[in-house]
Amino acid sequence: MPNISKRGTQMPASPIRRLVPYAEEAKDRGVKVYHLNIGQPDIKTPDVAIAAMHNLDLPVIEYSHSAGIETYRKKLVKHYKGIGVNININQLMVTTGGSEAISLAFLSCLDPGDEVIVPEPFYANYYGFASSTGVKVVPVISDIDTGFALPSFSEIEKLVTKKTKALFICNPNNPTGYLYSREELEQLKKMVLKHNLYLLSDEVYREFCYDDAEHISVMELEGLSEHAVMIDSVSKRYSECGLRIGMLVTRNARIIETAMKFAQARLSPPSLGQIAAEASLETPDSYFKQVNAEYHKRRNFLVEKLNQIPGVFTPMPKGAFYTVARLPVDDADKFCQWILSDFSYKNQTVMMAPASGFYITPGKGKQEVRIAYVLNIEDLSKAIQTLEKGLEAYPGRV
Amino acid sequence: MPNISKRGTQMPASPIRRLVPYAEEAKDRGVKVYHLNIGQPDIKTPDVAIAAMHNLDLPVIEYSHSAGIETYRKKLVKHYKGIGVNININQLMVTTGGSEAISLAFLSCLDPGDEVIVPEPFYANYYGFASSTGVKVVPVISDIDTGFALPSFSEIEKLVTKKTKALFICNPNNPTGYLYSREELEQLKKMVLKHNLYLLSDEVYREFCYDDAEHISVMELEGLSEHAVMIDSVSKRYSECGLRIGMLVTRNARIIETAMKFAQARLSPPSLGQIAAEASLETPDSYFKQVNAEYHKRRNFLVEKLNQIPGVFTPMPKGAFYTVARLPVDDADKFCQWILSDFSYKNQTVMMAPASGFYITPGKGKQEVRIAYVLNIEDLSKAIQTLEKGLEAYPGRV
Ligand SMILES: Cc1ncc(COP(=O)(O)O)c(C=O)c1O
Ligand SMILES: Cc1ncc(COP(=O)(O)O)c(C=O)c1O
Repeated sequence: MPNISKRGTQMPASPIRRLVPYAEEAKDRGVKVYHLNIGQPDIKTPDVAIAAMHNLDLPVIEYSHSAGIETYRKKLVKHYKGIGVNININQLMVTTGGSEAISLAFLSCLDPGDEVIVPEPFYANYYGFASSTGVKVVPVISDIDTGFALPSFSEIEKLVTKKTKALFICNPNNPTGYLYSREELEQLKKMVLKHNLYLLSDEVYREFCYDDAEHISVMELEGLSEHAVMIDSVSKRYSECGLRIGMLVTRNARIIETAMKFAQARLSPPSLGQIAAEASLETPDSYFKQVNAEYHKRRNFLVEKLNQIPGVFTPMPKGAFYTVARLPVDDADKFCQWILSDFSYKNQTVMMAPASGFYITPGKGKQEVRIAYVLNIEDLSKAIQTLEKGLEAYPGRV
Repeated sequence: MPNISKRGTQMPASPIRRLVPYAEEAKDRGVKVYHLNIGQPDIKTPDVAIAAMHNLDLPVIEYSHSAGIETYRKKLVKHYKGIGVNININQLMVTTGGSEAISLAFLSCLDPGDEVIVPEPFYANYYGFASSTGVKVVPVISDIDTGFALPSFSEIEKLVTKKTKALFICNPNNPTGYLYSREELEQLKKMVLKHNLYLLSDEVYREFCYDDAEHISVMELEGLSEHAVMIDSVSKRYSECGLRIGMLVTRNARIIETAMKFAQARLSPPSLGQIAAEASLETPDSYFKQVNAEYHKRRNFLVEKLNQIPGVFTPMPKGAFYTVARLPVDDADKFCQWILSDFSYKNQTVMMAPASGFYITPGKGKQEVRIAYVLNIEDLSKAIQTLEKGLEAYPGRV
């Protein structure tokens, strides 16, 4: 029997996936499982997107241009202008989700063995994209006790080696919900200019900022034309995860040219998804206001309730729809399994994402979980109550 | 300015893309350009697929399971059974086009630096997927004068090294239209068993076989459970290139398990595409009969007409909708450019794919072009006439 690739064998399976069978078993026992673990918004997709499919009028569903349908790209240029990102049509590419934009950025900016510095905890799939493209992730710890703020310049600089080619941030952050301040972004700018690095910024949660906090795109920073690369997506913005439409945005023409060579090999991003995404640009402002208000309310509720549970701490995140919480447990992986397999309260339980999946530094995040607020307040309330009862009953409580 | 990756810099731009501006200029001059260069069928997408979009009834367009929507996978199992491929639901994964299935197969079966032997000429994008996954393509020449039949066992075996992990065929072949015989497949089977290799088979043109020729899938060969991997796609079958839906099929559980780890990182294949593709399984047989009859007619017409042009030779391909033709020219790259930029006949010209893009062995295919018959007979006729006149006028004729 031929061998599986080493890269495939070495790639870790996600700690959330490991929990799936336990959640299934709980459901089989008739226990209601609240999913605090997922990044799939429960918000309705805008009507304009669905209408575009209802009105689909094409004899042949063809490949699109490898960089995306031209009319869509033109409208995206206008859309970006509206949020203060001035680019032209040659400075963006439509991709198969933000996911593919990340892979294309890695392929174009880094060679196998090259290093990318990423604040930790980070979106677990970055590690997957790094694995498949041979890139080495070098984590720089951000701490729950300082609300996951970026470490100091010197702390980050210590990690720069000859192999370092890029810094990669997620803003607002998944899993922490952290929103980078202008000062932090200026600090990163200084770093990338000093060491001649790329600054990759995953901004797929851009619309989800609370308390009137301002989101600053790397594309708005002066003097970074050749350095800044933005990853974007319609997945969260319009609750359109299934469309698989994202964007790679940069003023560095050589990155676009290079990414296009890789993108041409895969022919085109999804055509139906693009048509729906193009229509979604007409989503009325009221949609976003409503969505934002809803998440804002949920966040406030969740953070308050979590911090009221004895021994639990979570900072107040300014963006996205996640928060990382520290629990009074020996091992969050064990606890997340136990609460599914051995516990229920009023015939309910909760599924959470152990934070170990968001760290690669061994031992980090051992007491932490990521909680997503993609449930309505009522369900969220029941879920938190269940978590509280679970923590009381857990044998490994510390 | 930071450097672009070496892998990106080294990746060649496709010779077809180089011709695009010349085609645009011809159109700007008012010249009608017949596209013999593309792999995008002109056939109508089945009504059932479009109807599925018209009837779309989902509040949220969510991520699907990373291996594809379960109902779709179940129906695919039935579909495969119908063509003699007996697999269960755990032996297939839905991917973002056949393109992604190829990348996932490379990632799961081969490590960077490992070698895959591919009969040449081959689908140019294999080289792109190899580039992005760090795999080395080792070509084995198949010759136009023997109709692109597979070279002998010993010819292929000469290329096997310690780094060889897989043989990769395309059946029926793009660009040659070659359909592998049972004897050839048995020969490949012997080879992969002897040297403990994977046998990857791209069968996205399976439905396009002519003269009652039988298509044999690698999945039908006995004793290859751990070795055989099939790449499949709805793109050509249903003229649904834009859906971006393909499949990775293998009985080797470890390949699926490994490919899933990479696939989970990119979350899911396109949901709308899957819904349309699932509906397409209900396409009536009459659709395929019509499509097949149409391509059959076109192929016969094209091959006959091409071989009537003095100095032109093309074998009779048994499958797909391409043929490779040898032209009496000094350099097909130059000729393909010249006929767009410097020639027209009755205000018409043709765009063809220079075969150089399908070879990596230097100098091979220099007089060859790939011609796709995705035009109706009338247009095809005008295109061939234009080609004939072009060949008469071309200064580099040999
Ligand atoms: C931080 C972050 N980046 C990128 C993605 C990928 O999103 P998509 O590929 O759906 O655009 C996600 C999805 O959860 C995410 O959380
Ligand atoms: C031989 C071959 N394999 C794979 C593909 C990829 O097809 P898709 O990604 O659209 O399924 C193509 C497309 O032209 C092809 O010709």
